[in-house]
Amino acid sequence: MTKLGKDKDDATGQEGQLSSRGGVCLSNLLVTLEQRLSVLSAEEVVWDQAVGRVLAEPVVASSPLPAFARAAMDGFAVQSTDLAEATAERPCCLRITGKAYPARPYLGEVAKGTAIRIMTGAPIPVGADAVVMLEDCEVSPDNQWVYFRRPVAPGRHVIAVGEDVAQGQLVLQAGRRLRPSDVALLVALGLSRCRVVRCPRVGLILTGPELVPPGCPPAVGQIVDSNSPMLAALIDRDGGRLVWLQRLPDERQQLLAVVQQALQQEIDLLLFCGGSSRGDEDFVPQVAAACGELVAHGLALKPGAPTGFAWLFSGPPMTRRLPAVLLPGNPVACLVAYELLAGRIVRRLAGRSWELPHRRRVLPLRDPVVSQPGRLDWVRVRFEQGRAVPLLGRGASSLFSLAEADGFLLVPENVAGYSAETPVEVYLFD
Amino acid sequence: MTKLGKDKDDATGQEGQLSSRGGVCLSNLLVTLEQRLSVLSAEEVVWDQAVGRVLAEPVVASSPLPAFARAAMDGFAVQSTDLAEATAERPCCLRITGKAYPARPYLGEVAKGTAIRIMTGAPIPVGADAVVMLEDCEVSPDNQWVYFRRPVAPGRHVIAVGEDVAQGQLVLQAGRRLRPSDVALLVALGLSRCRVVRCPRVGLILTGPELVPPGCPPAVGQIVDSNSPMLAALIDRDGGRLVWLQRLPDERQQLLAVVQQALQQEIDLLLFCGGSSRGDEDFVPQVAAACGELVAHGLALKPGAPTGFAWLFSGPPMTRRLPAVLLPGNPVACLVAYELLAGRIVRRLAGRSWELPHRRRVLPLRDPVVSQPGRLDWVRVRFEQGRAVPLLGRGASSLFSLAEADGFLLVPENVAGYSAETPVEVYLFD
Repeated sequence: MTKLGKDKDDATGQEGQLSSRGGVCLSNLLVTLEQRLSVLSAEEVVWDQAVGRVLAEPVVASSPLPAFARAAMDGFAVQSTDLAEATAERPCCLRITGKAYPARPYLGEVAKGTAIRIMTGAPIPVGADAVVMLEDCEVSPDNQWVYFRRPVAPGRHVIAVGEDVAQGQLVLQAGRRLRPSDVALLVALGLSRCRVVRCPRVGLILTGPELVPPGCPPAVGQIVDSNSPMLAALIDRDGGRLVWLQRLPDERQQLLAVVQQALQQEIDLLLFCGGSSRGDEDFVPQVAAACGELVAHGLALKPGAPTGFAWLFSGPPMTRRLPAVLLPGNPVACLVAYELLAGRIVRRLAGRSWELPHRRRVLPLRDPVVSQPGRLDWVRVRFEQGRAVPLLGRGASSLFSLAEADGFLLVPENVAGYSAETPVEVYLFD
Repeated sequence: MTKLGKDKDDATGQEGQLSSRGGVCLSNLLVTLEQRLSVLSAEEVVWDQAVGRVLAEPVVASSPLPAFARAAMDGFAVQSTDLAEATAERPCCLRITGKAYPARPYLGEVAKGTAIRIMTGAPIPVGADAVVMLEDCEVSPDNQWVYFRRPVAPGRHVIAVGEDVAQGQLVLQAGRRLRPSDVALLVALGLSRCRVVRCPRVGLILTGPELVPPGCPPAVGQIVDSNSPMLAALIDRDGGRLVWLQRLPDERQQLLAVVQQALQQEIDLLLFCGGSSRGDEDFVPQVAAACGELVAHGLALKPGAPTGFAWLFSGPPMTRRLPAVLLPGNPVACLVAYELLAGRIVRRLAGRSWELPHRRRVLPLRDPVVSQPGRLDWVRVRFEQGRAVPLLGRGASSLFSLAEADGFLLVPENVAGYSAETPVEVYLFD
């Protein structure tokens, strides 16, 4: 375990490869976590809850789609062989023997020499094998006869059984995030339920005696907890749900008790927010280490250095390993640590992509950006006349700087910065 | 009003500019609608309902952020003038007279010659004007004295009142869609409510005697209504809510009665789905015209030609004009008509962008795409080895083709198609 601090030597031991003088390398930590975290188990949901969820199992069509042959056009259902000789000079004439509507099928048979007036979507009656468009038909004034001036190919304007989906066909792969039209497909196939990846349940422990809940007026020295609303919305975006939340002073015994309580909850990820620096009252890393394995604390990341990751042991018999992320309390650092570490974990558990979910755009930088080699820098940028303007000198606590920014760029560990006019990939906030 | 049909001449009259031989031009219709539709009125929401909503009014800070001066670092709060002469050889020595924690402020004054141990986030005590980082301090073994080996600038490591946001500052503009961090900013400013654009309430009338509700097993000749789940999810995506739904056979009197019923609902947009073609039982355009002004019916759009738009008059005294979109019943055509017309209306009412909300990517086409000049074509594409493969020959009813596709491209009215390898802009489904 590498401790946060400027004066620490490289850590040794089994997590040694993660660390460097300036803190743990996030990319290395992510490689380890990507291997060790797995997608949650499956649950069944009803169709109206399925959009946006990730399929846990492939979907196979238990019936064909469509389930019956249907007319693709308004017109006449015929036996195509009847029209084989039809020409403009010698039209073929068939007797009209009935009408077929959607949901009011023609129950008789289309015999040789007869035709059925059919509407779009109506089942093709027995005997017929083609539909002639209404525009290509001439009906006698007494509505008894219909004339055709050319042949029709068998199957013309007929939507065959299973034309869209054959019975037994694999229609959607496991791992797919269900789109609105996918749910339409499931419903059309008569599947009113499907098995999706369970929604990750997230717990959050906020430490800081100065915190008051959102919506409460703070006294002098108090500040409103603005991180939990932000985190709740981000967890939501990533397919998880914040289900358990505790705010408490950063007091060791109390914190330990609340973590024990958290380990009894049905949660898949525990977030700590605040109390992860080196201050006299920052007990989160100690408590995380006491309840499991503090894999990393202090990242080579700016902002967000006081970020950490731990496996907490729960049980009994202490065999379950609950992932836990230590997020800094400063709002910007908290956002960065969520986006670059915790959000990935939520999405991995939810069966979604490990990649950042933001839209990206490549833009030239207006001003240079300088970073420290070996450190990952998260830089707010604003768009101005087609260029990305880095918002420098805004601290880790400036919520307004996030409102000002249109997105962010990343300066990786192996890059010392970018000169002006370098095209950079910007992650958009919107 | 231009009717759908191949044999119709150009329409004349006041909507004449919208129409052409092959149907109404969607782009022209959109220009008209963009001018006439306005953003809905405002409503108040509590912070936990605000993410994703659009601000109806600008947000001005009623208090500064932070509301009190705070320590940015752990260390000692001092009067900077006390350290003016401090050097490595002749350190300055101050008496430690107290501690300041977040939420447990030091209530005394930092007098000349004294220092206060202060934690990150704690209020700066009266008298102090700078914080020296703990790393730069030496504390005597008896914890009574602290030594400094260099001067400190006034304001060092102090987060000043209003440093992030000044009182009275405009922090968020009207029209902004609230991000998670915006809500954090509102909450931090003590604003637990804000005024946002009302969520568009959408009604949906599905016609077709063959339809059974999602989740119900269809009899022979019946099909499951798969459009309403798809539309509900798309409306949701666009910031609206499907609040009222009726399924009915396409029977004129019944349809008229249900539309009258719809006009009594608190809805901002009415969608019709199905019954908008030229079939014997397609009464939707007639009924829409009877209840208001059928502005367009039959678009130069493939798939989606049977799409329409109407203003329905409601009241009394019939002065309110409810926008109504006629969507085709075929699922793919329904999706296209929603995306290109109805979805834009939902987003406009919700205060969101008129533009399509999909991510875009420019890719070369693998195969050519041919379109009819004067018609807008919506073409499903699949991605294959960095190229967009048009999924041709899939009909307007193939739900599976939507599952196969990764996105779509548009061939505008003034383009006859694209040759292979042309770079095209693809709208992504995911």
